[in-house]
Amino acid sequence: MSPCPGLLRRPHRRRDAVTAVNEARIENSDPTQLTDEEIFNAHLGGKLEVGATASLADPKALSIAYTPGVARVSKAIAEDAALAAKYTWAHRLVVVVSDGTAVLGLGDIGPSASLPVMEGKSALFKTFGGLDSIPLVLNTTDVDEIVETLVRLRPSFGAVNLEDVSAPRCFELEQKLIEALDCPVMHDDQHGTAVVSLAALNGANTVLGKNIGDQRVVISGAGAAGIAIAKILLAAGAGDITLLDSRGIVRTGRAGLNPVKEEIAAVTNSSNLDGGIDVALRGADVFIGVSSSKVSEDLIASMVDDSIVFALSNPDPEVHPEVAARHAAIVATGRSDFPNQINNVLAFPGIFRGALDAGARRITEGMKLAAADAILAVAKDDLGPDRIVPSALDPRVGPEVAAAVALAAKADGVA
Amino acid sequence: MSPCPGLLRRPHRRRDAVTAVNEARIENSDPTQLTDEEIFNAHLGGKLEVGATASLADPKALSIAYTPGVARVSKAIAEDAALAAKYTWAHRLVVVVSDGTAVLGLGDIGPSASLPVMEGKSALFKTFGGLDSIPLVLNTTDVDEIVETLVRLRPSFGAVNLEDVSAPRCFELEQKLIEALDCPVMHDDQHGTAVVSLAALNGANTVLGKNIGDQRVVISGAGAAGIAIAKILLAAGAGDITLLDSRGIVRTGRAGLNPVKEEIAAVTNSSNLDGGIDVALRGADVFIGVSSSKVSEDLIASMVDDSIVFALSNPDPEVHPEVAARHAAIVATGRSDFPNQINNVLAFPGIFRGALDAGARRITEGMKLAAADAILAVAKDDLGPDRIVPSALDPRVGPEVAAAVALAAKADGVA
Repeated sequence: MSPCPGLLRRPHRRRDAVTAVNEARIENSDPTQLTDEEIFNAHLGGKLEVGATASLADPKALSIAYTPGVARVSKAIAEDAALAAKYTWAHRLVVVVSDGTAVLGLGDIGPSASLPVMEGKSALFKTFGGLDSIPLVLNTTDVDEIVETLVRLRPSFGAVNLEDVSAPRCFELEQKLIEALDCPVMHDDQHGTAVVSLAALNGANTVLGKNIGDQRVVISGAGAAGIAIAKILLAAGAGDITLLDSRGIVRTGRAGLNPVKEEIAAVTNSSNLDGGIDVALRGADVFIGVSSSKVSEDLIASMVDDSIVFALSNPDPEVHPEVAARHAAIVATGRSDFPNQINNVLAFPGIFRGALDAGARRITEGMKLAAADAILAVAKDDLGPDRIVPSALDPRVGPEVAAAVALAAKADGVA
Repeated sequence: MSPCPGLLRRPHRRRDAVTAVNEARIENSDPTQLTDEEIFNAHLGGKLEVGATASLADPKALSIAYTPGVARVSKAIAEDAALAAKYTWAHRLVVVVSDGTAVLGLGDIGPSASLPVMEGKSALFKTFGGLDSIPLVLNTTDVDEIVETLVRLRPSFGAVNLEDVSAPRCFELEQKLIEALDCPVMHDDQHGTAVVSLAALNGANTVLGKNIGDQRVVISGAGAAGIAIAKILLAAGAGDITLLDSRGIVRTGRAGLNPVKEEIAAVTNSSNLDGGIDVALRGADVFIGVSSSKVSEDLIASMVDDSIVFALSNPDPEVHPEVAARHAAIVATGRSDFPNQINNVLAFPGIFRGALDAGARRITEGMKLAAADAILAVAKDDLGPDRIVPSALDPRVGPEVAAAVALAAKADGVA
């Protein structure tokens, strides 16, 4: 596949797309061009550090922050447990928890190999949410053992970001953690992706003058991301959703569905389709790819004329965005070197920051919907076919999302 | 008790001691003078923060530290587990672990109330050892559950500093962790205190021209610190040790001894004393107090003429140092507002730093003895009755201890 311009495009979009792609190439480094040397050098010794908020290198500071001064603070918390939220770091600390079973596109590579990803996630919490965060990677894949471990550690942290846990275990794990821990818990591969996808779809529909309630949406991939996207789009009023896994359209009555797919089958596929991606995409308005299954140009061409294509698989999108752009009105990917990057970093730092700012006991659907609205609101004066969401690096997004999420937490009665 | 000069002192020590006490008062703030306001304000929001070692706020940095670049590092670790030590922060991360059962002098105040102490400890690791450290406080006091929790989290950290766990559980917990985790594990209330006490006793003996092998040492307190001090002094060649708990001298055959006390009774009390602190102290050379039991002036006076008194209970020493100084040749406490502060911060940052620098699989007796020697070596050109160890804030100590401990780890074959 040629990465150069010169591909056949629809005339009315050609200039925009080519310009934007070139701009993106100049502005963002092409990640495929990173050398091993620069990547590995940047990871030497890991990517996180812990610091003291005040130096302890003089006698008075030592007497205050450690013995004997600290004893008064410990005594005060022992007498009034609520003071821990004020005088320890735990209430603002997000633990990034993984068992390493579904890491990026690499699969089950184990906890130790997942750690560089989790360190990166913790770094993103700091950079975009102003939150302290540490990775906790676990040498067990047993859902109940993971829950038990975090219950034992509960006084040490304020919120749990689950990451890269394989489906369908991730659904059970998240649910059990929400029940066991009285604090915000979110599996980002589900809900972060879902929130940003909803924001992007709303952005695309705003640009095209369309309404989610009138659209037929096809989601390829019924893992963590696919299930959560289907649910949030339904909550946002989507008219019809067709969900596919590796065996085709997920539909009620299909043999061998796990409980999560059974549940989603009951509320999707209202057209009662049966078959593969070809059946699903014919005449569809929106394609959202969150599996690594390739989608051919012919299939994209079989959608409606002004279709919307989100090919989110990373680093290899389900369909190359320049190919999709020959047929679709709006194309997005998960990559930084093409326009319309749908990146979870738009969502999770602000969601956790807002939940913790509000003192929320959990993360509600209302908080997620509020986050999607806030993401889009940042880009609202500047929307276009190649700008349906803000840049992943836009520093306004985190604070705006946090403020909206905190308000929603109060409105939903969880703070 | 008057804090002013004018107390009866031995003439040959009077000027030194008074000068040093006054200097300490001026140089170090008196911790008893700290106001609640300054202590609580310094603890607002906790005392730790996590940062990224490099900013992720530009596209290239994000592509390197997170997707897609990070995938290459994760893949490399999946293929060669040893690379985790090079490309993650875990191998240099010390977890400060407590169940909050024996916090300072406050007792069993629980994990949440212990957190300010553990945050302070983590801050000290950074300030004096250059190590990243996070507190993990546990909602369980079951030894096996704590071990199980840390085994599950093993890929997340590089070493365990146990803190403020009640005796005798702390002995069993430390032993089980050493067996279960292939990394440095140390209960600082035992071994940090023991290492610094040994350094201080060696310093005092150097000043007085005495030899540990000729001394009878009385240790008041048979908890974590007392047991560990007894063991390290024996390893360093102490002639005779008498250990006391709340029921008097710990001796073979005494009813109701727990297994740890049985074991220590078998190797101490070679004079076969029976009774209380009065029996133990009569004619003793060294007193080391690590319980809150008060010791009267008469009892100190019953020791040999040029006795050594370490009254380490904090914030209230077993005997006021100015009272002890009427009879003893050298007096030390755990407090920063008197001379000769015996503070664990002289030991633990360098011990862990040295163990991690060397890649040690555990912490040996040889490494602890090397740490004690290195602490004393820093003060060797400047020893005196009021300077038997370096200042707790001397920045040379951590690196010197680390270097000596790393060498000892190699010599002992654990690195």
